[in-house]
Amino acid sequence: MDRRAFLATAGVAGTLAAPAVAQSSGSFKWKMTTAFPAGAPFYSNGPGSLKDFAARVKAMSDGRLDIQVFNGGELVPAFEGIDAARQGIVEMNAWVSYFGAGRLPAAQFFGAVPFGMSTQGKNAWFYIGDGIDLWNEVYEPLGLVAMPIGATGVQMTGWFNKEINSIEDMKGLRLRVPGLAGQAYSRIGVDVKLLPGGEIFPALERGVIDAAEWVGPAMDKVMGLNNAAKYYYTTGWHEPTTVTELTINKAAWETLPADLQAIVSNCAAACNVISHSWGEANNAAALQEFKANGTEVRTLPTDVVEALRTEMTAVYEEMGAADPLFKKVMDNYFAFKASHDVWAEASEKVWHSELR
Amino acid sequence: MDRRAFLATAGVAGTLAAPAVAQSSGSFKWKMTTAFPAGAPFYSNGPGSLKDFAARVKAMSDGRLDIQVFNGGELVPAFEGIDAARQGIVEMNAWVSYFGAGRLPAAQFFGAVPFGMSTQGKNAWFYIGDGIDLWNEVYEPLGLVAMPIGATGVQMTGWFNKEINSIEDMKGLRLRVPGLAGQAYSRIGVDVKLLPGGEIFPALERGVIDAAEWVGPAMDKVMGLNNAAKYYYTTGWHEPTTVTELTINKAAWETLPADLQAIVSNCAAACNVISHSWGEANNAAALQEFKANGTEVRTLPTDVVEALRTEMTAVYEEMGAADPLFKKVMDNYFAFKASHDVWAEASEKVWHSELR
Repeated sequence: MDRRAFLATAGVAGTLAAPAVAQSSGSFKWKMTTAFPAGAPFYSNGPGSLKDFAARVKAMSDGRLDIQVFNGGELVPAFEGIDAARQGIVEMNAWVSYFGAGRLPAAQFFGAVPFGMSTQGKNAWFYIGDGIDLWNEVYEPLGLVAMPIGATGVQMTGWFNKEINSIEDMKGLRLRVPGLAGQAYSRIGVDVKLLPGGEIFPALERGVIDAAEWVGPAMDKVMGLNNAAKYYYTTGWHEPTTVTELTINKAAWETLPADLQAIVSNCAAACNVISHSWGEANNAAALQEFKANGTEVRTLPTDVVEALRTEMTAVYEEMGAADPLFKKVMDNYFAFKASHDVWAEASEKVWHSELR
Repeated sequence: MDRRAFLATAGVAGTLAAPAVAQSSGSFKWKMTTAFPAGAPFYSNGPGSLKDFAARVKAMSDGRLDIQVFNGGELVPAFEGIDAARQGIVEMNAWVSYFGAGRLPAAQFFGAVPFGMSTQGKNAWFYIGDGIDLWNEVYEPLGLVAMPIGATGVQMTGWFNKEINSIEDMKGLRLRVPGLAGQAYSRIGVDVKLLPGGEIFPALERGVIDAAEWVGPAMDKVMGLNNAAKYYYTTGWHEPTTVTELTINKAAWETLPADLQAIVSNCAAACNVISHSWGEANNAAALQEFKANGTEVRTLPTDVVEALRTEMTAVYEEMGAADPLFKKVMDNYFAFKASHDVWAEASEKVWHSELR
C-alpha cells in the first residue's frame, strides 16, 4: 500500500476512533507497536529499551497501566505501527521518524538531523526549548501525542570496504544509508542504497554494496558488521543523535487519568537518558574490541564533510521552500542550535579538546 | 558542632530511627531538606529542580507521596540535611557530595570529579556501569539510599579579574573554589578561599578575592558575577559535570510500596536529564548576553591545566592510599572513564571538532 495514501485515509477515521481495548476500573491494557526487530538491544531489550519502559510503567502504576510491546512486524508491518496508533488499533507506537521521511517531512527534526545537535543540545531543545511543543503541533492533526523515549548519541558514519581519502573516493560508492542524509550523499555522487537492517551484513560481505551505515559500535557488533568491512568511519554528521519517537493515540491518551499520564511522560524521559547511557557504556567496549581485532577507525576527510554540508544545506532550503511546516520546525531547531553552539564551544568542546 | 563527630554519633541512632512523619492508608507526607538557597534556578525552582521533582512525584502518585521541599537553612543548616535524613528527622535530602568532602571522601566520585567524565559518561557509569551500586554501598552503613537527581553539565572555571597567561599568574591568586579541585589549586600556589555562595559577589567586587568559581553562565548570571569580574575562564577541568545527590532514609524507603519506590527512582532519572537540559538551554543565552556586554571568554592556558592535572593525580593517589573505600570507587570510576574515553574520542570529540 502506498503509505502516503494510507495516512491520508487513516486521517479521517483514525483521529476519532476509540482505542480498541476495553478499559475498566481505572486499569488499562494497552498495546505498543514498534519498528524494531526482536532481540535488538537498545530498542527492544535492556535498560531504557521499549520493553523496559513498559515494565517501569507497570511497576510505577502498580499494574494499572499494562503495555504489551510488539516487535516490528509482529502485529502490523514494522513501519505501519504509527498508522495503527492513529487508527486506535494500538494505543502507542515507537519508531524513528526517518522511517516516515517521505510522508512526514517536518517530523524529521525530532529524529535524526544531519548537521544538527548532539544529544544534550537536542534534549535542551525538547525539554526547555520548543521541541516537544512543535512535535505535538506536527502530530496533532494526525490525532497523536508525541514525546522522546530514547537517544542513540552520536552515530558512526559507517563501515567501508576501502579507505576514503578525498571526495573522489565517494563517487559511485554503493552506500546503505537512510533518511535526509541520503539526499546529500546522492548529490555528491554516492550511489545510495536503501536496505532493511537484516540485509546489510550479507550485502556488505558479498560486495553488493561497498559501505553501510547502521548505528554505533554496540549495535553494529550485534549485526557482525566488523566482519564484513575493515574501515569504520566517524564524524556523526548524518546522525549526531537519533531519537526514538513515542506516539500515542490522542483519544486513548485522554482517557488516562492524570497520574498515569504523568507516569508515562516521566518514564519516557527516564528511558531517554537511560537508553543513551546504554549506548555510551556499550559503544566503548565494542569499539575497543573492534580495534583489537583489526578494525581501522578513521575520520571522514574534511573535503567530504564540507561537500556534504553544502549539499545538505541546499536540501534543507529546498524542502523548507516546499513545506511551510517543515520550514517552521527547521527554523526553530536551527535557531536553538545556533544559540546552543555558543555554549557548546565554551563547554564540551573545550573540555574534549583540552582535557583528553 | 563538629560534623564528623555528629555523623559518627548519628550513625548509631540514625539508621534505625523510624521516620518522624505519620504514614497511613498508603499515603505518605515526606520532608526533603536541601543545601540550596530559595529561588536558585536549577536546584530550587524550574524544570528538573527539586521542587519540580516533588510536584512530579505528587502527580504520578495521585497525591499518595507528598514531599515538602525545604531550602537550605529552613529546617536545619544547609549542609546538615544529610544528617537529618540519617536520623529520620526528614526522609530525604538533596545536596552535592562536595559539601561533605571532608567527611565522605568516597562519595566525591558521585558529585564533582576533577579531570573526570562529563554528563553522558557519568550517566553511563551510573545507570549501566557500577556507579549507582557503589553509591549505595558507600551510603549503606549510614542508613541511606542514594541516586542522581540533577546534573549541571560542564562548569565554567570561573570569573577572574585579570588575564591568566601562564602558571605564574596563578601564584597567590585568591580564588574561591570548593571540593577536591581546591587541593590541586592550592598545590600550584593559589590562595584557595572557601566562601558560601552568597558572599561571592561582594568579595569579588570589592577585591577581597581575585577570582571565583560558581557554576555556569545561567546560574552565575543570577548572582551578577559578570558585574564583578571581566574575564570568564573555561575548561571544565574541576567539574566536568556536577551531580545533585538524592539520599533517602533507608528505613523510610523500605516503608514505601514498590510502586512509589519506582515512581521516585524513575522521576529522579527524569529530573536528571531535564535539569541538565535547563542548564544547556539557559547557559547558551546567558553566555551570549555576557559577551555582548563586554565579558571576555578565555580558556585556561595549557601549562596551568597540565600542572593542575599533575597535582590532582597526586591528590587522588594520596587519598586512595589513606582510604580503601575511596580507592575502590576511584578505581572503578577511572576504569570506566578510560574505556568510555575511547568512544568519546571517536564520537562527541570528532563531532565537536569537525562539525562546528
